[in-house]
Amino acid sequence: MIDFPYIKDIARKTPGKIVMLVVDGLGGLPLPETGQSELETASLPNLDALARRSAAGLTTPVATGITPGSGPGHTALFGYDPVKYLVGRGVLEALGLGVELADGDVAIRCNFCTVDDAGTITDRRAGRIPGEEAESLVDLLRQIEVPGVSLSLHASKGHRFVLVLSGEGLGTDVAETDPGTIGLPAIPAVALSDGSQRSAEAVGAFIAAARDLLSGQPAANMVLARGYSQVPDWPSMVDEYRLSPAAIAAYPMYRGLASVLGMEILSTGETFDVELDTLESAFDRHDFFFIHYKPADAAGEDGDFQAKVLALEELDAHIPRLLALGADALVVAGDHSTPAIAAAHTWHPVPLLVHSALTVGDGVPEFTERACAMGSIGRIPATGVMMLALANAGKLQRFGP
Amino acid sequence: MIDFPYIKDIARKTPGKIVMLVVDGLGGLPLPETGQSELETASLPNLDALARRSAAGLTTPVATGITPGSGPGHTALFGYDPVKYLVGRGVLEALGLGVELADGDVAIRCNFCTVDDAGTITDRRAGRIPGEEAESLVDLLRQIEVPGVSLSLHASKGHRFVLVLSGEGLGTDVAETDPGTIGLPAIPAVALSDGSQRSAEAVGAFIAAARDLLSGQPAANMVLARGYSQVPDWPSMVDEYRLSPAAIAAYPMYRGLASVLGMEILSTGETFDVELDTLESAFDRHDFFFIHYKPADAAGEDGDFQAKVLALEELDAHIPRLLALGADALVVAGDHSTPAIAAAHTWHPVPLLVHSALTVGDGVPEFTERACAMGSIGRIPATGVMMLALANAGKLQRFGP
Repeated sequence: MIDFPYIKDIARKTPGKIVMLVVDGLGGLPLPETGQSELETASLPNLDALARRSAAGLTTPVATGITPGSGPGHTALFGYDPVKYLVGRGVLEALGLGVELADGDVAIRCNFCTVDDAGTITDRRAGRIPGEEAESLVDLLRQIEVPGVSLSLHASKGHRFVLVLSGEGLGTDVAETDPGTIGLPAIPAVALSDGSQRSAEAVGAFIAAARDLLSGQPAANMVLARGYSQVPDWPSMVDEYRLSPAAIAAYPMYRGLASVLGMEILSTGETFDVELDTLESAFDRHDFFFIHYKPADAAGEDGDFQAKVLALEELDAHIPRLLALGADALVVAGDHSTPAIAAAHTWHPVPLLVHSALTVGDGVPEFTERACAMGSIGRIPATGVMMLALANAGKLQRFGP
Repeated sequence: MIDFPYIKDIARKTPGKIVMLVVDGLGGLPLPETGQSELETASLPNLDALARRSAAGLTTPVATGITPGSGPGHTALFGYDPVKYLVGRGVLEALGLGVELADGDVAIRCNFCTVDDAGTITDRRAGRIPGEEAESLVDLLRQIEVPGVSLSLHASKGHRFVLVLSGEGLGTDVAETDPGTIGLPAIPAVALSDGSQRSAEAVGAFIAAARDLLSGQPAANMVLARGYSQVPDWPSMVDEYRLSPAAIAAYPMYRGLASVLGMEILSTGETFDVELDTLESAFDRHDFFFIHYKPADAAGEDGDFQAKVLALEELDAHIPRLLALGADALVVAGDHSTPAIAAAHTWHPVPLLVHSALTVGDGVPEFTERACAMGSIGRIPATGVMMLALANAGKLQRFGP
């Protein structure tokens, strides 16, 4: 289940508090011109000072060479094997939009696309149709009704939208209709096993109705469906770790993921400052806090080295507030690397700090990829981070007699 | 199957090219007199300069403390778990001799040995009988015929030869006849499961006939059989990685192994210079190239420190030709260590370089065991090398939403 099979037996309830700060896209790579990464370039007096009083290491999010999406990157940090505990694309997209999914609902990631008169796909993304235009097409499709199943539609970015099926006896084992390439017709949404017959029929009926409604639309005249998924029934952090865990994240997707893992979602605002307000005011009520910092990833994805440096410096300025809470274990981790020179998530190991009463004197000179590589934690799978957090907070009993 | 279970889902076909140079027996150990390893003693201006622009690390071929043969050392570098994907000893010996094996053929590694009048083994290797003498004994055994099964015999080094059975319905689950110690009789070649009855009968008949023919021979009067194996049906690099892979190797065994993994074998010559000619002329036709450099291992096995230093220096002189190709990802790896002071393969981690557009500024000062240990890749199982090669060449999509 969780990384260590006896975790439930050795986890114990204590008053100790854990704060896990996840810096999205934390890891970087050197600019060829300077040989220095974003963390090495940024001025981070508070994180560097913390690194000197912390245990440091590097985490491998999934496996060597494997670049994680945000889903696997986060589930791993909470101790769940990201290969085994994989959230479906439809659910993740729905969670990202803040859509509430009930047990049994099937969330489906859909694209607007274009087809020619013969039904052959000519553009799988309908020319990356602008958001406003897509929203009006989603509105148009809201009139579609399918007997026995409730449909709800949610516009996402550009050509993407989410279709949610609600009703009895819905499965997710339905053929994805996107052939993955142009020049082919869409694949029929047939059921791939018995329990998914109703879902397949509903998707088929929806697509047929959508094609009729979109016929003659200049921007997109067809839809493709994939990533059929349901909110998974995973072991909860409450039961596995004997925690009362809470999540503080500005973006819906991270809140959605956290709720799947059993965390209570604390309502918060858009900025890290407001997230810290939320943390301070809820600090007495929980013993584990996941707090999410997004701007480093966004800058990295944009390929903007200087913006990522600034995002890290802005984070650094907030570290004293985090330290002032006096958590028994403070973890600073990242879900994956997003080097500006790659302008994308990558597979590279991610810096990690764990600060507790047992780490003073154990430090590395600064909070960078290279310094953390020399730290006492070494290079570990990201699933080990949660174990270190629990252990440093005194929440894990000895294993075995 | 391969190191990461979703590899097929995330691998994508791109025009990017990967060159993986495998330096056989690359890793070494310091000479006690100088405290410097072969790599540290050699003058390697090109490899050192490449190291400064590459990501570096160390690979563990199989597991800590485990010394690999050439088979596991190579299969791991191509991403196949070397414990799970183990080529049988008979097949490896046959491939090493350049014997072509058809599907269903059973290759058997045999030894000449000596037995006393009671049939008790007195020398399992017949005094390590010289090659010429063994070859004439192999010739003598070529007259043996077994009904319904074709036999072919191939002399190997010293007391070793390979027996290949061809025919219908042959299995490999036959008792090995070598008891592993002297003072015992040979074990009868009985079938250990139903599908191997025909093989067991053929081996039994061959051994009985061999004993008669060898009776009175001074050097060896009996044979032992083990390592019954067939060419395995493994997942292909073509399907798993969506590559068009090619192998360039002077020695038959490496070509044989590469073909088992789905690589196209390019005909080449005896020297690395000719191997590079082959690489250059085929560069447009494939997107993955395994190119093999043997002399470092041969010198290490001979226990000749200076010869290994020279072999590495000779390799270094060819690095500019390799770089001139402009591969998207260039990997320099080793299948195992062969320190001259050990005069044998050892278990020690092996230096690794990965060079791509994302590694500039990420380097280590030189290409040695100690410098690579400080590199950004860290110490990884050798099965991760293929993932890094694919990732650095842009051939792996993100895992999970």
